[in-house]
Amino acid sequence: MRRIRLTIAYDGTAYCGFQLQPELPTVEGELNRALRELTGENITVIGASRTDSGVHAYGNVVVFDTGSSIPADRFPLALQAHLPADIRAVKGGEVGEDWHPRKTDCIKTYEYSYDCGRIEDPKQRLYSSFSRYVPDVDKMREAAAYLTGEHDFTSFANPSSQVLKEGGSAVRYIYSVDISAIRDGREIDNVNVIIRITGNGFLYNMVRIIAGTLMNVGTGLWEPERVKTALDARDRTKAGPTAEARGLTLIGISYPDECHDAGDTGENA
Amino acid sequence: MRRIRLTIAYDGTAYCGFQLQPELPTVEGELNRALRELTGENITVIGASRTDSGVHAYGNVVVFDTGSSIPADRFPLALQAHLPADIRAVKGGEVGEDWHPRKTDCIKTYEYSYDCGRIEDPKQRLYSSFSRYVPDVDKMREAAAYLTGEHDFTSFANPSSQVLKEGGSAVRYIYSVDISAIRDGREIDNVNVIIRITGNGFLYNMVRIIAGTLMNVGTGLWEPERVKTALDARDRTKAGPTAEARGLTLIGISYPDECHDAGDTGENA
Repeated sequence: MRRIRLTIAYDGTAYCGFQLQPELPTVEGELNRALRELTGENITVIGASRTDSGVHAYGNVVVFDTGSSIPADRFPLALQAHLPADIRAVKGGEVGEDWHPRKTDCIKTYEYSYDCGRIEDPKQRLYSSFSRYVPDVDKMREAAAYLTGEHDFTSFANPSSQVLKEGGSAVRYIYSVDISAIRDGREIDNVNVIIRITGNGFLYNMVRIIAGTLMNVGTGLWEPERVKTALDARDRTKAGPTAEARGLTLIGISYPDECHDAGDTGENA
Repeated sequence: MRRIRLTIAYDGTAYCGFQLQPELPTVEGELNRALRELTGENITVIGASRTDSGVHAYGNVVVFDTGSSIPADRFPLALQAHLPADIRAVKGGEVGEDWHPRKTDCIKTYEYSYDCGRIEDPKQRLYSSFSRYVPDVDKMREAAAYLTGEHDFTSFANPSSQVLKEGGSAVRYIYSVDISAIRDGREIDNVNVIIRITGNGFLYNMVRIIAGTLMNVGTGLWEPERVKTALDARDRTKAGPTAEARGLTLIGISYPDECHDAGDTGENA
């Protein structure tokens, strides 16, 4: 048996999240089915990130064990015919037999996208949430600076977080929060505001709460300093709202020490 | 009665094209229904461009006559609640009572988008067609240069074109064909190749045939000079294939002389 690691991209619109749920469409369910069709084996994948319903990914990671002789880097092309068009394996490699995508140190990058303008852009609606106000990006950057570094992110986690309920730590290290604003310049003169966050781990809903909070600052509802107050409070009610799922994309997961993919070093580092 | 002009954006994925067809979902059908709900009048819009099934728009144009007192520039917001999320009015203005969007000189801009790489990007699949090969953009630009200016575009029109069948002219003026290539740089390292074409009119399927032909050049199947040969032949069989509908977006229509929209001068000019 070999353990194969795949990088997975998907449009999460049609799925009830990544994690397998009986009778419901899930990304994991589609991957298991496609791998079983391809290999004839009863395969169940282990996912790195169990993204929520409606959340997208360019670079989620899964592993599975197989006796198949398909070369690891051929799985993406071989799986194409077995996967729906909104899910694709984009890279494949072999990893050690004990390698586990959730038990290995990693760096994750997410993007949260807001379509900002008077009228929502129909072509953005599946991948951005909508803001009627074009935010002040400089103020958002000022606020975001309070979030980088090592902090207790209790205020920025859904209290139903399994980690927190089990008494786990809410301390995470955020390497960067970058905010860009792109004016489309087409007939819909909206501004696409993208919040890109890289960290060593994220609590449940953390990116969406950070996005909702930074938007409170960008629209002038909050002063940037209030983000520091919210962080220090370690109280979910002190941070802003949870932004909608559709605006969130898991861009990639980097495993600095343990990635053995052929030609796949340094992804998203 | 006043004649109102609206700029319309839509994701065409779910529609059997712009033009009304009984029992089928169409953009025109949704607009008529929404306007009737809003005004209580039996409104039928006149569209500038009857885009095909699956084709998108940022800036199609429609007009309709109404006795309603809603200010022209308020229609976009007022229509929001009556339109599905994949159709939006984005601008409104009043025009003269005889103004007709297909009988007025205009300049149209289209974009054709290819998602190019080894594996298709699930988040691009609705708005780009897919090419397994990353084309040589310089060769495409060389070929595109043969298309600018005034030419007979018989070779680049679907022979079932109503205009051609009625003996109309195939001569059109293409102001520009610009080709850009954007490397995403995320986990899916695809290249988004966008062909942007501006002209004083387009025959049926003309942009999609130009796109398919330029892709023949970009992938090395054709030399750039063959586009000139195809153009001179005035024979559809001498040009390349018709690219898929999903990659096409009508960016905007500019009416240089006759646009009276409030605050809406110079769009796409």
